[in-house]
Amino acid sequence: MDLQPIGVIRTCFAEKFGVPRQARMVAQARGTIHISAPFSHPDTVLGLEQFSHLWVVFLFHKAQTSFHPEDWRPTVQPPGKGAPERVGVFASRSPHRPNPIGMSAVKLESIHRNEASNELEIEVSGVDILDGSPVLDIKPYVPYADIIPEANNGWATEEIASYAVRFSPQAEAAVAHDPVAKNLITEVMRLDPRPRSQRDAVPLENPENIGKKFAFRFLRFDLHWVIAADATIHLVDVIHLAE
Amino acid sequence: MDLQPIGVIRTCFAEKFGVPRQARMVAQARGTIHISAPFSHPDTVLGLEQFSHLWVVFLFHKAQTSFHPEDWRPTVQPPGKGAPERVGVFASRSPHRPNPIGMSAVKLESIHRNEASNELEIEVSGVDILDGSPVLDIKPYVPYADIIPEANNGWATEEIASYAVRFSPQAEAAVAHDPVAKNLITEVMRLDPRPRSQRDAVPLENPENIGKKFAFRFLRFDLHWVIAADATIHLVDVIHLAE
Repeated sequence: MDLQPIGVIRTCFAEKFGVPRQARMVAQARGTIHISAPFSHPDTVLGLEQFSHLWVVFLFHKAQTSFHPEDWRPTVQPPGKGAPERVGVFASRSPHRPNPIGMSAVKLESIHRNEASNELEIEVSGVDILDGSPVLDIKPYVPYADIIPEANNGWATEEIASYAVRFSPQAEAAVAHDPVAKNLITEVMRLDPRPRSQRDAVPLENPENIGKKFAFRFLRFDLHWVIAADATIHLVDVIHLAE
Repeated sequence: MDLQPIGVIRTCFAEKFGVPRQARMVAQARGTIHISAPFSHPDTVLGLEQFSHLWVVFLFHKAQTSFHPEDWRPTVQPPGKGAPERVGVFASRSPHRPNPIGMSAVKLESIHRNEASNELEIEVSGVDILDGSPVLDIKPYVPYADIIPEANNGWATEEIASYAVRFSPQAEAAVAHDPVAKNLITEVMRLDPRPRSQRDAVPLENPENIGKKFAFRFLRFDLHWVIAADATIHLVDVIHLAE
């Protein structure tokens, strides 16, 4: 099969931890799709600006060490609390699948053509895609085809937990001049970006875990946080990493 | 990129004319996804039966004569009446695209394992996919990720026209013993399955076109029809083709 990426998406998510579990969970999470030649002809996006949302079809390029078909397993462990222990790979949206193709419905912000790089730059928000993912296709989101009001949630009925996030004065000071970053850090921390194994082993809700410390690298920052009372995430320090 | 089909979908649409323009426009349109080994391990669909709808990610295998990237064009002509003359390929859901990947949200009917063929057979309805299309992936449709209530329809704001369909006694007799086929023929004919060029040149709504004759091959039938008064499609004969 002669498929080739039409470009790449750059996002604020350099590592898989912190990537929201679905598109549009973190409205502030921005991304830029860079469409390269020959796909960057301005006509290819004619009329796209009229849509509010679009589908990004991309490759989960870091889900596997390679694209060898042997890298998938029949079942996967869903990330949600209260989700079944394992579900079939085709009953999940996991990145670890025989053909590691992802699709995310995101909000369209703007479309520019960069004459210097000969690229189309499509700005989107509400992304849940890892930085650097190869993009295979872009399609408009069309409500009459894509909205199914009567569809159910299958096994994924549990609400996704969202926690309160508090900044220490020190952490606050570190992002005082960057309200966009502060907002994004808050939204990503709210979802508890730890891997499921750690969330299951050290739940935020358990008072025994109050005071336990964690670190998380995100954007240009090293975030140090502790579990505080009432399942609150307390950011004790935010350290700006050297470039 | 090492992508390989996980199986194939068999549908009632042997030719591109008659394929509904979107999934779920013809609720009766059935398809069976045949997942082949090694992807047909029963665990791969564990929990899928709990979902009402699923995404089929497939290849538009007949959109191009080959998968050569040169086969696409920057703009396409959308099929709808009242649609713009041309839109960008990434502003459309056309099959003619740089990476000919399609995605359709369909209703899940049933899942069986065929021990003889070592295949999983997933029955779906509301398909808009050509018979024999290679399937790359199956994902559950999840309302919280896939429904965007605030999304707009971009340039595709026009309602899709639906016409009245009448059977002559002769046509009626030909499908009298097959109510499922009769139903499906009615639904597909309602949408006027002619190519856009013909629909534009000979519109059903123009009284001057009353009496004009057409033929359309669908399922195991050759359908002969005329444009009747009040933009009605009159099926004058339905001929059962030899197997």
